[in-house]
Amino acid sequence: MSDKLTDKTLIGFLDALASSAPAPGGGSVSALSGALGAALVSMVCNLTLGKNKYADVQDDISALVERSEALRHELTDLLQADVVAYTGVSQAYKLPRDTPEEKAARSAAIQEALKKATVVPMQIAETCVKVLDLCTPAAEKGNVYAVSDAGVAALMAEAGLRSAALNVLININAIKDREFADKMGAKLDGLLEGKPAFKDQIYDLVVEKL
Amino acid sequence: MSDKLTDKTLIGFLDALASSAPAPGGGSVSALSGALGAALVSMVCNLTLGKNKYADVQDDISALVERSEALRHELTDLLQADVVAYTGVSQAYKLPRDTPEEKAARSAAIQEALKKATVVPMQIAETCVKVLDLCTPAAEKGNVYAVSDAGVAALMAEAGLRSAALNVLININAIKDREFADKMGAKLDGLLEGKPAFKDQIYDLVVEKL
Repeated sequence: MSDKLTDKTLIGFLDALASSAPAPGGGSVSALSGALGAALVSMVCNLTLGKNKYADVQDDISALVERSEALRHELTDLLQADVVAYTGVSQAYKLPRDTPEEKAARSAAIQEALKKATVVPMQIAETCVKVLDLCTPAAEKGNVYAVSDAGVAALMAEAGLRSAALNVLININAIKDREFADKMGAKLDGLLEGKPAFKDQIYDLVVEKL
Repeated sequence: MSDKLTDKTLIGFLDALASSAPAPGGGSVSALSGALGAALVSMVCNLTLGKNKYADVQDDISALVERSEALRHELTDLLQADVVAYTGVSQAYKLPRDTPEEKAARSAAIQEALKKATVVPMQIAETCVKVLDLCTPAAEKGNVYAVSDAGVAALMAEAGLRSAALNVLININAIKDREFADKMGAKLDGLLEGKPAFKDQIYDLVVEKL
C-alpha cells in the first residue's frame, strides 16, 4: 500500500486524522479543503461545457476548468508536502541534546524545519485564494443547475485559506528569525484581507440564483 | 471494489467530484467537511488523553471524544445517504411522461424525492452544528500544542453547515408543498443564526492561544 495520504480512502484518512498521530492534522485538512473547492469549480465547468444553453461562455468555462484542475493538483501535492514538512519538525525535536554542540545543532535543525513547515501552509493559503477567485465566474457563468456547488466551492476555499493561516501562525510564533517571521506574517495578512467578506459575497450571489 | 464513496481514495473522490457525474457534489462535500471537523476534535482529544499536564480535564476530554467520534460516524453515513437521496431525484426526473397519468406519477415521484433530498442535508447541517459546539471546549481544554487543529475543526464544521444549507435551499425552492418547504426554511434559519460569528469567536480564541 502506498504511504501517500491522497491514496488513503476517505474513511482511512479520517481515522488517521482523528488519531493521536502527529500527521495528518489541520495542515493537511487545509489543503484538502482547497482541493475540494477546486474540484467543485471543475464540476460546475464540466456541467456547463457542451451545453447549448451556455454556448456563449464555452471559451471562458474552458479556461476556468483548466485553471481549477491545475490548482486542484497543486493542492493535493501540497497536502503531501505539508505532511513531509511537519514530519521534519517532529524529527528535529527528537534530535539528541546531551552536549552544548548537540543542543545547538538540534536548535538550528528545529528552526530550519519550522521555516519549511511555514512555507508549505503559506503556499496552501495562496493557492486557496486562487481557488476562491474562480468561484465568482463559476457562479456567474456556470450551469445554474450547479450554482449551489459554486457556493460550496467558495466556502471550502475560504475555510482552506483560514485553516492554512492558523498553521502559518502557530509556526511563526516559534521561529526565532524575526525578519522571516514578520515577512511571513505580513504576507499572510495580505492574503486574508477581505477574504471572509468576499466569500460571503459569493454566497449571497449563489443564494440569489438558487 | 466497493461503491461506497467513503471507500474511495482521496484522489478518487476528488476526481469523481470534479467530473460531470451528478454525484458526488456539494452535498457530499458538506458532510465530509463536517466529518473532517469532528475528526480534528477527536485528534485534539487524543493528544490530550493520558497527559499529566491535562490531568484535571481527562473526564471532560473523554466525554468530548466519545461525542466527536459519534458525530464523525454520523457524518460519513450522511455522506453516503446524500448520494442515495440525490440519485433518487435524478431517477425521478428520468421517469416517462408520455401520458397524463405518467406525467402525474413522475411529478409526484420528483416531489417525494426532493423532500428526501432536503431532509438529508438538513441532518448534515444539524450534525455540523453539533460538531461546531465541541470546538470551544476542545480549544479551551485540549492540548494547547494542537489548538490550531481545534480552530481548523471550527472552520470545517461551519463550512459544512453553510454548504449543507445551500443544498437544503436549492431543493426547497423546487418543492411545491409550501408547508413542508416553509418549515424546512425556518428550521434552517434557526440552525444558521449566529453560527458564522460563533465560528469567528472560536477562531479568535485559537489565535490568542497560538
